[in-house]
Amino acid sequence: MAQKLTPDARRAALESLPKWHDAEARDAIERRFVFKDFNQAFAFMTRVALVAEQMDHHPEWFNVYKTVDVLLSTHDADGLTERDVTLARKMDAFAAAFGI
Amino acid sequence: MAQKLTPDARRAALESLPKWHDAEARDAIERRFVFKDFNQAFAFMTRVALVAEQMDHHPEWFNVYKTVDVLLSTHDADGLTERDVTLARKMDAFAAAFGI
Repeated sequence: MAQKLTPDARRAALESLPKWHDAEARDAIERRFVFKDFNQAFAFMTRVALVAEQMDHHPEWFNVYKTVDVLLSTHDADGLTERDVTLARKMDAFAAAFGI
Repeated sequence: MAQKLTPDARRAALESLPKWHDAEARDAIERRFVFKDFNQAFAFMTRVALVAEQMDHHPEWFNVYKTVDVLLSTHDADGLTERDVTLARKMDAFAAAFGI
């Protein structure tokens, strides 16, 4: 089972993910992705979905038109784990391919 | 431009969409879809995305694992229109294909 990050590891992870911030209500991280249009936003979501399924680790996300709001946390660990950091990095890479 | 439904048309539309309910804060309708797993939930979202893009009418939706919460409203009309009803019916049909 995934272990919650230690405070030091958590701080280091967030420093390496400057586009993500702490969620207010939970031990989780969030990022808003704003694409050019729905086509791009859903293409991004599709790439993420395939990876999420492969990792068996899924985001919580909200989409309206070109905006995708993502929250990452690990349910089993009741907080942030290395799996969230890995998924966040993949999302950043996929978004970067769209120039985001 | 899409016209907001009249109160009578709105009532009739909602009676014909028994799995949908009025949103609390806005002139919109909502439905929660609970699938078997993420694979089904995202397959549903993909079918909806293709139709939404074709209609140029997009849902607001939130997904976590096997659950998809959808809100439909027409931004240009600041409320519910025939386009929302059409999209809701398509969503119901796609979900029904998964036995939902």
